[in-house]
Amino acid sequence: GLSLDIVCRALQNDLVIPRWSPFVEDLRKMYRECAAIEEGQVATYIPQLARQSPKLWGVSLCTVDGQRAFNYAIVASDLGADVVHSYVGQEPSGRLFNEICLDSKHKPHNPMVNSGAIIITSLIKNKLNMADRFDFVLQEYRKIAGNEYIGFDNATFLSERASADRNYALAYYMKENKCFPPEVIKSESLTDELDFYFQLCSIEANCESLSVMAATLANGGVCPITNETCINPNPCRDVLSLMYSCGMYDASGQFSFSVGLPAKSGVSGAMIVVVPNVLGLCLFSPPLDKLGNSFRGVSLCKKLISRFNFHNYDCLVHSTSNKIDP
Amino acid sequence: GLSLDIVCRALQNDLVIPRWSPFVEDLRKMYRECAAIEEGQVATYIPQLARQSPKLWGVSLCTVDGQRAFNYAIVASDLGADVVHSYVGQEPSGRLFNEICLDSKHKPHNPMVNSGAIIITSLIKNKLNMADRFDFVLQEYRKIAGNEYIGFDNATFLSERASADRNYALAYYMKENKCFPPEVIKSESLTDELDFYFQLCSIEANCESLSVMAATLANGGVCPITNETCINPNPCRDVLSLMYSCGMYDASGQFSFSVGLPAKSGVSGAMIVVVPNVLGLCLFSPPLDKLGNSFRGVSLCKKLISRFNFHNYDCLVHSTSNKIDP
Amino acid sequence: GLSLDIVCRALQNDLVIPRWSPFVEDLRKMYRECAAIEEGQVATYIPQLARQSPKLWGVSLCTVDGQRAFNYAIVASDLGADVVHSYVGQEPSGRLFNEICLDSKHKPHNPMVNSGAIIITSLIKNKLNMADRFDFVLQEYRKIAGNEYIGFDNATFLSERASADRNYALAYYMKENKCFPPEVIKSESLTDELDFYFQLCSIEANCESLSVMAATLANGGVCPITNETCINPNPCRDVLSLMYSCGMYDASGQFSFSVGLPAKSGVSGAMIVVVPNVLGLCLFSPPLDKLGNSFRGVSLCKKLISRFNFHNYDCLVHSTSNKIDP
Amino acid sequence: GLSLDIVCRALQNDLVIPRWSPFVEDLRKMYRECAAIEEGQVATYIPQLARQSPKLWGVSLCTVDGQRAFNYAIVASDLGADVVHSYVGQEPSGRLFNEICLDSKHKPHNPMVNSGAIIITSLIKNKLNMADRFDFVLQEYRKIAGNEYIGFDNATFLSERASADRNYALAYYMKENKCFPPEVIKSESLTDELDFYFQLCSIEANCESLSVMAATLANGGVCPITNETCINPNPCRDVLSLMYSCGMYDASGQFSFSVGLPAKSGVSGAMIVVVPNVLGLCLFSPPLDKLGNSFRGVSLCKKLISRFNFHNYDCLVHSTSNKIDP
Repeated sequence: GLSLDIVCRALQNDLVIPRWSPFVEDLRKMYRECAAIEEGQVATYIPQLARQSPKLWGVSLCTVDGQRAFNYAIVASDLGADVVHSYVGQEPSGRLFNEICLDSKHKPHNPMVNSGAIIITSLIKNKLNMADRFDFVLQEYRKIAGNEYIGFDNATFLSERASADRNYALAYYMKENKCFPPEVIKSESLTDELDFYFQLCSIEANCESLSVMAATLANGGVCPITNETCINPNPCRDVLSLMYSCGMYDASGQFSFSVGLPAKSGVSGAMIVVVPNVLGLCLFSPPLDKLGNSFRGVSLCKKLISRFNFHNYDCLVHSTSNKIDP
Repeated sequence: GLSLDIVCRALQNDLVIPRWSPFVEDLRKMYRECAAIEEGQVATYIPQLARQSPKLWGVSLCTVDGQRAFNYAIVASDLGADVVHSYVGQEPSGRLFNEICLDSKHKPHNPMVNSGAIIITSLIKNKLNMADRFDFVLQEYRKIAGNEYIGFDNATFLSERASADRNYALAYYMKENKCFPPEVIKSESLTDELDFYFQLCSIEANCESLSVMAATLANGGVCPITNETCINPNPCRDVLSLMYSCGMYDASGQFSFSVGLPAKSGVSGAMIVVVPNVLGLCLFSPPLDKLGNSFRGVSLCKKLISRFNFHNYDCLVHSTSNKIDP
Repeated sequence: GLSLDIVCRALQNDLVIPRWSPFVEDLRKMYRECAAIEEGQVATYIPQLARQSPKLWGVSLCTVDGQRAFNYAIVASDLGADVVHSYVGQEPSGRLFNEICLDSKHKPHNPMVNSGAIIITSLIKNKLNMADRFDFVLQEYRKIAGNEYIGFDNATFLSERASADRNYALAYYMKENKCFPPEVIKSESLTDELDFYFQLCSIEANCESLSVMAATLANGGVCPITNETCINPNPCRDVLSLMYSCGMYDASGQFSFSVGLPAKSGVSGAMIVVVPNVLGLCLFSPPLDKLGNSFRGVSLCKKLISRFNFHNYDCLVHSTSNKIDP
Repeated sequence: GLSLDIVCRALQNDLVIPRWSPFVEDLRKMYRECAAIEEGQVATYIPQLARQSPKLWGVSLCTVDGQRAFNYAIVASDLGADVVHSYVGQEPSGRLFNEICLDSKHKPHNPMVNSGAIIITSLIKNKLNMADRFDFVLQEYRKIAGNEYIGFDNATFLSERASADRNYALAYYMKENKCFPPEVIKSESLTDELDFYFQLCSIEANCESLSVMAATLANGGVCPITNETCINPNPCRDVLSLMYSCGMYDASGQFSFSVGLPAKSGVSGAMIVVVPNVLGLCLFSPPLDKLGNSFRGVSLCKKLISRFNFHNYDCLVHSTSNKIDP
């Protein structure tokens, strides 16, 4: 069933969406239309995912599929964008998200592809021990989620690690190309780093907590529930830029063209969408399209943008559209 | 010398930039700082370009380097985005702008790479004869430019055509892959189509007219001088999306990350920048950086964005920056 | 029907295959076994080829599918290997035969891929006019074929030219990379050069004449019928080296590993095979395997090599095989 | 100094090179000429190699640089070519020897590139424990070397393992693509397998023993010193085929074109060359050319082939060359 205050969460300022009740009714209608969609395939790359029901839509436990976005935001808040981007670029790669390649400066193309996400992880508090590093990230996630549910799914972790050949290949290729920070150069610690990466991939949220996390991004890094600043303003701006250009795998250009909103999707079928200064959405439905994005999730985004003026350039003057500003 | 009402042109609504005079003074200062930059190389791929003085900065005759953006906007206004994007994609390619490759559907990656620009050109009024097609485009350009100077540089045309081996290779490769509309399939007409493409590459403007063209995009497709609707609202939104994601060659991701504005640059060293609803800029300076963008032009954009809140996500609430909203 | 003295032709020295009659009987048996093979697809890239009957096996008109080998041999006899290989390399490309790529020195990988074959053609008597150039090649082919039938199939020429998009793309890409000899640099003459290339692709032979051509290579460049030296000794050695390493498209390594003989196949389904100092074979059967080689042709070669000691390294001492030395 | 019966070793049959003394004198002269060559760079990819003197030429300890050839021959003798080639192809890759790529059937291109060599190693007696597997290979090498010196350089092993990022990346990439035999699928054993691979890379020989190993290949798999059959006839033929087409890295095509002999070179600067039925050579000189082959070694081969009729197709009748048949 749907509880829309779970699926999306407008910023706490009551004036952001003044006509709240018809807006929610619109969303509820789109939700029902998308529930009828039967297309897409549940991801099978690890057994934990393959067991997901294709019927799931909207309310469920899921791994934090926007974790790459949040890990980036956390590291950039901690170290600053300059340090982070001395290790990872900002360009869409034009390749598959897990392809074994680097950019012309021998860096991962951006923080959203696998190689970039591994490097970002290796930058998180890498002078602490592993337990403290994991604890640090968990606390940050909980702050961003306004203390909504954040857990850990050990079965996903074990499953990720057991299916990790490509990530190991990527990691050794990056080690050869000196992509890692100097703290992470001994081969023993490479295994530890990848374990840490798989653990962060296995942090669990539900749609409610993920939508709060998205709303924190929409709110300039300040959690709309607790009013706590969790992400600094510049990293918050930067992570939206990266989600906009690289957040939807190989469909990122198409998504930013037609939907025009920062989003990050993941193989579990969860995706977060940010309407800056307005709201954060979490959409969850396991069946994926060919490019790895949630079929129902992308469909709802398209419906949303055809009705409301949320597209990045919907603000243009002289628009003749009859889109609603909710 | 600089005449700033030539370099940039705020929208005709007097309230858009209320403190006009200090804003212009700021821009003038940035202009002078960038004039001191000596880096970058003048493009040499055709002799007409190689002869450009590296000292040129700001006011000069130049080819319409944003022509790919405008050709796209013209075709999309004429045929609609659906027809256009059945021939050309919307994804950054992650490759060089002139690389001989297509996307997984055997289409050019987007309208801003060479292959996509050739196909877009072939869609322009392709049932008319060549003279009428050229005339149509010229009239459209003049409308967008508010009747400021738009000319034709025949030497550039001849030079382009004489250095066209790669474009011929691209065109035949696309012909093999059935990328062209059915109207353009006979090999005799391929030469005509490329001539048309080179002619559109040789349309000439000056900084004044180009800045008006940029301002028309900033103004939702309505020319701020004549108040005439030149580009339909949806194509105008779409061309800004494409300029944002693919307009600056292989530095597009980096530019949208750090500057966060739709822009289109060209090898002549001219670039247009659009601040939606605010203003259009034309920057012109032949020395290029390694990725093919005007060195002084990109520098000025970075200065601009560090002082004014023009970045795509500068609007975020809770920003602590002391950027100016002019 | 089969007339084996058409399919293969031992060198004129009566002692080369002393037990001629059982050898022919063995071959006849292999021929019949291969005639039963129904696998493979007739090539369809030009209509003239698509109309070939899949039943054809052994005796028929076909284009000179080894033409790349003979064109190379003719040019190398005329200009010397050093001149020729300043334009074209000797390495297998590891890519498809018509892929748009060059080696690290911006030269075609070898004379057997499309790009290399086009350059080799452009080196043939390129100071003469087109008619004389064509005539020169035809005379050379007739010498190599001992005055057996060599003709010209104009329908194939027209068909090749009408399906030539990829070859045009390749040619312009090579023109951009300055692969052509200085005599061939004006864009008008590029069309002429490709016409010449398509004409040489349309020279026609029958199995009898092609087997004589193969036998001339087996005989060190001296036609076994006329005893005329048609190809100089070094070019003859070199063309066998190239056929051995690059003659069977992407199956060249596999073919030289398992069959160990220089061969050249073509999309019409004809292939020539050379047993040095012993004989030349022409095998013709239009159905092709996935890599573009004649299914029955390759099958017969494998049968041949499992019975006779013709493999490149079958000469090794201490071999315990019971292969026959015919 | 040079002791030519160390550098090369004709087969034990006295009649193979009847005029032995002038042949040795010729070789001695070539050796002195090549000693004067100062070009090429000592390999630096592991410290143990970087310390080699560029002056070394001909007589020295070196790792068995043809080990890929011998490992293949040993496995193929043990399991048969069909089993081996169900895991590894026979085509030149057209790429760098250590590039992260597989062929269209998701197998390594051939046993001579890094990926193929790793798979070949994993096929060696993979039901035994590691100690017994290593011992097996060492015994086989000693048989092939006629009990000349074969040792183990532990410093090279440790150095290889410490510089192994690319090989780890390759191994995990192949594990993902299911390239390994079923015996080697658990991630723990992948590390063991790579250790085994690095150990085989660290087997040591001197020029004398390596030249005997080459001579065993020249002699159809029978060691010319002990007369023991070490490699079965078919694998011996096959390994010569592979050395001929893929043994000299990216210069394999060029080498087989101009020299026409099976050879295998390695980064230590040692190379073995086989003149079938005549002799085996070991050439050792650390400075390498750009493609990774010993500069002096390749030079001597070219001198050799310009004087003696050893090229694969030098046997052609009607050759007018005045090459010597020693």
